[in-house]
Amino acid sequence: MTIPFHVRRMLEHLRGRVSEETVRQRLGPAADRAQPLRIVSKATAQSVRALWQRLRAETASTEADEAAIADPASLDAAEAYSKHIENFIGTVKVPLGVIGPLRINGIHAHGDFFVPLATSEAALVASYGRGADLVSAAGGASAAMVSESVLRTPAFVFEGLAEAGLFIDWVVNHVDALKQAAEATTRHGKLVSIEPVIDNDTVFLLCRYTTGDAAGQNMVTIATQAMCVHIDAETPVKPRHWFIEGNFSGDKKATYLGLLSGRGRKVTASVVIPEALVARKLHTSIERILDYGKVANLGALLSGQFGAQAHYANGLAALYIATGQDAACVAESATGYTRLERRDGGIFVSVTLPNILVGSVGGGTVLPSQSAGLGILGLRGPGRAAALAEVAAVLCLCGEISIMGAMAAGQFAQAHHKLARLR
Amino acid sequence: MTIPFHVRRMLEHLRGRVSEETVRQRLGPAADRAQPLRIVSKATAQSVRALWQRLRAETASTEADEAAIADPASLDAAEAYSKHIENFIGTVKVPLGVIGPLRINGIHAHGDFFVPLATSEAALVASYGRGADLVSAAGGASAAMVSESVLRTPAFVFEGLAEAGLFIDWVVNHVDALKQAAEATTRHGKLVSIEPVIDNDTVFLLCRYTTGDAAGQNMVTIATQAMCVHIDAETPVKPRHWFIEGNFSGDKKATYLGLLSGRGRKVTASVVIPEALVARKLHTSIERILDYGKVANLGALLSGQFGAQAHYANGLAALYIATGQDAACVAESATGYTRLERRDGGIFVSVTLPNILVGSVGGGTVLPSQSAGLGILGLRGPGRAAALAEVAAVLCLCGEISIMGAMAAGQFAQAHHKLARLR
Amino acid sequence: MTIPFHVRRMLEHLRGRVSEETVRQRLGPAADRAQPLRIVSKATAQSVRALWQRLRAETASTEADEAAIADPASLDAAEAYSKHIENFIGTVKVPLGVIGPLRINGIHAHGDFFVPLATSEAALVASYGRGADLVSAAGGASAAMVSESVLRTPAFVFEGLAEAGLFIDWVVNHVDALKQAAEATTRHGKLVSIEPVIDNDTVFLLCRYTTGDAAGQNMVTIATQAMCVHIDAETPVKPRHWFIEGNFSGDKKATYLGLLSGRGRKVTASVVIPEALVARKLHTSIERILDYGKVANLGALLSGQFGAQAHYANGLAALYIATGQDAACVAESATGYTRLERRDGGIFVSVTLPNILVGSVGGGTVLPSQSAGLGILGLRGPGRAAALAEVAAVLCLCGEISIMGAMAAGQFAQAHHKLARLR
Amino acid sequence: MTIPFHVRRMLEHLRGRVSEETVRQRLGPAADRAQPLRIVSKATAQSVRALWQRLRAETASTEADEAAIADPASLDAAEAYSKHIENFIGTVKVPLGVIGPLRINGIHAHGDFFVPLATSEAALVASYGRGADLVSAAGGASAAMVSESVLRTPAFVFEGLAEAGLFIDWVVNHVDALKQAAEATTRHGKLVSIEPVIDNDTVFLLCRYTTGDAAGQNMVTIATQAMCVHIDAETPVKPRHWFIEGNFSGDKKATYLGLLSGRGRKVTASVVIPEALVARKLHTSIERILDYGKVANLGALLSGQFGAQAHYANGLAALYIATGQDAACVAESATGYTRLERRDGGIFVSVTLPNILVGSVGGGTVLPSQSAGLGILGLRGPGRAAALAEVAAVLCLCGEISIMGAMAAGQFAQAHHKLARLR
Repeated sequence: MTIPFHVRRMLEHLRGRVSEETVRQRLGPAADRAQPLRIVSKATAQSVRALWQRLRAETASTEADEAAIADPASLDAAEAYSKHIENFIGTVKVPLGVIGPLRINGIHAHGDFFVPLATSEAALVASYGRGADLVSAAGGASAAMVSESVLRTPAFVFEGLAEAGLFIDWVVNHVDALKQAAEATTRHGKLVSIEPVIDNDTVFLLCRYTTGDAAGQNMVTIATQAMCVHIDAETPVKPRHWFIEGNFSGDKKATYLGLLSGRGRKVTASVVIPEALVARKLHTSIERILDYGKVANLGALLSGQFGAQAHYANGLAALYIATGQDAACVAESATGYTRLERRDGGIFVSVTLPNILVGSVGGGTVLPSQSAGLGILGLRGPGRAAALAEVAAVLCLCGEISIMGAMAAGQFAQAHHKLARLR
Repeated sequence: MTIPFHVRRMLEHLRGRVSEETVRQRLGPAADRAQPLRIVSKATAQSVRALWQRLRAETASTEADEAAIADPASLDAAEAYSKHIENFIGTVKVPLGVIGPLRINGIHAHGDFFVPLATSEAALVASYGRGADLVSAAGGASAAMVSESVLRTPAFVFEGLAEAGLFIDWVVNHVDALKQAAEATTRHGKLVSIEPVIDNDTVFLLCRYTTGDAAGQNMVTIATQAMCVHIDAETPVKPRHWFIEGNFSGDKKATYLGLLSGRGRKVTASVVIPEALVARKLHTSIERILDYGKVANLGALLSGQFGAQAHYANGLAALYIATGQDAACVAESATGYTRLERRDGGIFVSVTLPNILVGSVGGGTVLPSQSAGLGILGLRGPGRAAALAEVAAVLCLCGEISIMGAMAAGQFAQAHHKLARLR
Repeated sequence: MTIPFHVRRMLEHLRGRVSEETVRQRLGPAADRAQPLRIVSKATAQSVRALWQRLRAETASTEADEAAIADPASLDAAEAYSKHIENFIGTVKVPLGVIGPLRINGIHAHGDFFVPLATSEAALVASYGRGADLVSAAGGASAAMVSESVLRTPAFVFEGLAEAGLFIDWVVNHVDALKQAAEATTRHGKLVSIEPVIDNDTVFLLCRYTTGDAAGQNMVTIATQAMCVHIDAETPVKPRHWFIEGNFSGDKKATYLGLLSGRGRKVTASVVIPEALVARKLHTSIERILDYGKVANLGALLSGQFGAQAHYANGLAALYIATGQDAACVAESATGYTRLERRDGGIFVSVTLPNILVGSVGGGTVLPSQSAGLGILGLRGPGRAAALAEVAAVLCLCGEISIMGAMAAGQFAQAHHKLARLR
Repeated sequence: MTIPFHVRRMLEHLRGRVSEETVRQRLGPAADRAQPLRIVSKATAQSVRALWQRLRAETASTEADEAAIADPASLDAAEAYSKHIENFIGTVKVPLGVIGPLRINGIHAHGDFFVPLATSEAALVASYGRGADLVSAAGGASAAMVSESVLRTPAFVFEGLAEAGLFIDWVVNHVDALKQAAEATTRHGKLVSIEPVIDNDTVFLLCRYTTGDAAGQNMVTIATQAMCVHIDAETPVKPRHWFIEGNFSGDKKATYLGLLSGRGRKVTASVVIPEALVARKLHTSIERILDYGKVANLGALLSGQFGAQAHYANGLAALYIATGQDAACVAESATGYTRLERRDGGIFVSVTLPNILVGSVGGGTVLPSQSAGLGILGLRGPGRAAALAEVAAVLCLCGEISIMGAMAAGQFAQAHHKLARLR
């Protein structure tokens, strides 16, 4: 009884699969080696067909598979696509739905928005759409981007603590030159803050940039590289090593640094929904939603949740894919705080997301269908990134309202059952 | 000087944008309301065109936008797609690249694999491809799924502590009936563990399921609903409220519960790469990679990273999109632990990911291009989910090796510059 | 402006203190070496005087200092004290106050308790006393110890993943022998669970013990050592290394493992306080306390607090010192969850502390004044540890009520001012 | 099997103790009420005796208990002690040991130090003493306080987001007046930074102070109260509520804010220990310690440790009690990062503690035996707080070296066995 049941169960599963004798062999290295692919940076219809020839020969993929991915339109645009990907073999078609018009009363986003969402999870669009309907019926959500900064955090390792301290002193006295070196590489990026963090012999420089209307991850990498090269050439306090990124920035992963101080754009959004709307559209009461809110807050705390919210990731992943953002950033963006409160005869709901990474220019935003996603939003091109971030936060607000309503009304499972299973 | 510079800067930005007088108005609710969309659950070419008519009329979207999204193939398959999405308006085309053959010596995945990756981030496929090349040249990575469980965590709120305790007692004495109620809803799901967690008057039941070859999030929702309905009907210790999900399970978000005890499939993978391969293919040395590893581990700790790794999210997001997985799960999956060590004249690198959520059946895996993604992997259909999870982990291993090599060689910025900017 | 002000300020402070030239010298190693103390395990009045002779000669300590620490009573009991400390030189006198009678309606602690608190922080005893008064006036707090387990977590490192897996298999098949080996070392300790956690080539065994009425940290160390020696001798799957504690157990530090699964004794306690009592004794209203509670919960979340509470540490440190517990365990014990809710015409307040480490026997509990502390509680000797844990939790409940009341009433600063400064 | 064993076991324990019928009664409120103590703020020998009269009558405490706590010296100094505690009944005598001379090469602490440690845990002083011996034999540890700031974080709640934003704008434009209001209350405290953090309608002001040579928690409370009163009177943007502390500051609890940005004094310390010393004094090798270090780092990560270290709490609690610091601050201080590395024919070990809360003046430092503790250190009175913080960090360094040596040598359990059990 002393061994947890799940451990026993897993061992039985494995024993059923492989004997003790074979497990060692099976996990050991292979002697032979298949012919590796060469990286194709510039694709053509020909290069795509060549890759498929090999895939068809050596994998389980079928003619239909090739047709589904390497469709004529994708082949035609192979060269354009290959600016965004290597070893291009076509495109994956992700279903796109739309919700709206969603009323947003933001500092940057102001008006009625249709929001495109790319997902293959049934019920997701319906759920966010229901939330959007409720928010809009209540007069819309207020929203504000309250800070912005993309981080790069190079690390410098010294002989010891004394040198590390002297290095920080040097950095502080040469900050203008560092800023100049970094900003020389970019028209849009501004290095707005350098904060040194010391751990004995190691110094991390927390470099915060604004990046104009791009998400900006490449921009800050290139700028920081230039800054580091300048430091390396000029500082009399020579590091034993330096690295352009000390794994401190939270790039593509959840960190408390990002939660606390923001990475990318920090946005807060809220709405007050009258009791009558809650009853009519969510089939539940404010009281019951607040009861659920208490449990949900406790669940977030007890499970060690990073932030406290219900499912920002669903909305953000769908929006990021639909508008050509970096879907990997969901790992850092999908966190923050949802709050509930009874107020003014209604229920106040707010969300705050400190790490929204979006751009209205650059990266995948220029691809045809992704650009179209931005077009539906009316947020294509320069001057729209802050508004896009506000839309992202309000979208999450809609999702929170809808899921909490479903939980409170006891309809969460039914919704999934109906939309995901039975049709 | 007492106010941080970034706060001052943000305020200047906002003051430039809106005056104090307008900010209150701008953030207030709107009086009028645009006509909301009705949810379309079953799409046809006609329903798609109807939606576009409205989008074209009321948004900045163009004819080209419509064409990019609502292409003929998408229109033809509208009904099929609409099993996975509401308000269907077409598809987003995400560029797909391929790497491999990647040698995997896993318990479930064994052999050479081509891995499809969907992304619009230049350099990503090249970077993972480089890692795959290195791993394969070293004889492949060993890998094992070491546990599996998808969680649902209903919550029950009682009058007080005494009732909560008596309820747990009742649950423990009726566990077989609860298991039966849950499992009656599903052919593939098994309820393998129920762990009560008490916080005074509130009890969460941590229900862990195995879900066959599906990712299983809907399956466990429906099963748990049935279990809760059974409890509600049978228990003499009546809760004041109950909710099917107490926001404890970590569904679509990072939690320490998931990190510690696993959610979805937990996989570990590793490889030993000889010094000569490091020199030839990464243009750096083991010594230098280990130096970087120390800094990266420190950066992870100091920044409060959730886990300790470099960029699992990049590989996972690309693989999830390419194979029809739920991209929102990147929020919980993209975490774990990367380790480095000098061993046997080479460098040992391992990754452990406790929360991989993938299925080889169900959800988006049946869509044409996503099914094709699984076809390329040779992991389409029943019996392949564990292998798919092992592939996901080895893919992350490849990405870690490649990025750490680039950091150590000082090529991280150059790679981005060359692949993302200059072509 | 790019460098944060606090960094500049610190550098100025350091520059004012030391020049660049001296900083390197100052931080470098010293050539000479003073004569080290030899460890004295068995103290006598003579050994104490000998140590003081040296301290008086080589430090700034005065005759009065020696008298304050090496008082006659401490000298007389030197040998007895030295069973608990090495290099004994006397005792530190920590002021002791008392609160109560505190009404507790617990599973194990039941009745009216006077609680001794050792602290030098003015206002602390008064604040906890006020909370105790309120709780008692409301009929007392309910409380229950809901789990108990002290962890040791040995680690075993293998050649690779295959061996690690086979080792777990061996452990599971030999669990009875392991349990026997561990329990042979102790009359009171029981090894109730062994949970293996694998990270590629490394296996941690999470060994949970019950420890009777002792806090039990030494007991589980000795038992686990015996278990590991048995494993080392018997397992055919030989580890490359093993260590008795893999820094996984959370001993003397905060971990999410402890928060989630409990370490030591997990206790939950609560009370409902009527509105009239709140008004009369806290000079505020339930409404206002709930308003504060919302802000306090948000502050806990946004600051990345480990748990969500106000100041458990104050009560626990004072109780631990007063009753001979290990004060270092405050680092792990002082965490958990405080909740507030309007209920039944009053305010429901609960606390849950998953990591209370206390014993009614063993360790410092046998020292004269510490034993007296337990005597005041009526919880000296065998059979009282669970009750002591319940008292600890209710004490924290009193502290939470009092501080939240002070915050709500706007009296927090005044209390400190009056009690700590002006007398 | 589906219910974890430890849950079943606990339920059996409870069922054995109480029946279902009695559990409800037992946890319910009591009708009667014992006579509460009145708070005694100014103690005399008489007031102490009066309290003991009641304790002797109503509790299990004996004459010997009273004598152990209310000894003549404590009675004589009752009034002086009662400036630090209410309801004074005597003193708890905590055993005091001493280690040293410990060589410290710090910016502020420089020379050989004897360090007093108050604890009842056998082996603790011996273990830290062994580490100190090793550090001193290696020429001493370098150390530097690298930042200082004590936080208070008042919270202001507004009608909505717009008002919250306008409030921040007002604060930023009136920062000098706020600073003046705060600093008018204190000679030593300086308000060095105000950072607003916004979550929709709620604004926290992160106020960082330097506090001279005091730990400073009361000082910053009183200053912040004055600042808030000033704000409340002057700001045209009226909050719905405000509270002097929004539970954001990390006072007496572990937070990521403190870990990341420091609370109290942040200190880093390190030493390089030659291989020969490791062999001679720790009976192990650098190789083996590094092997342990890898496992310990992994254990810290996998268990969700807050920081990554072995047992800072042991040294800090013993030092805090010995020198009149606030022992409750162990909850926040006992965290940080320990690092290991092979370097220059030896092993480099460093510790970084971001949250050391110590003062050389104020609070418990003026009590006779606690003042004597500072006297032994040579750090009594003004101008010594920074040095005291550096001593605290080096002490932790000694403890880390000793315990890692014991783990590597396989002596951890033996040490406990020998020192704690058998004498």
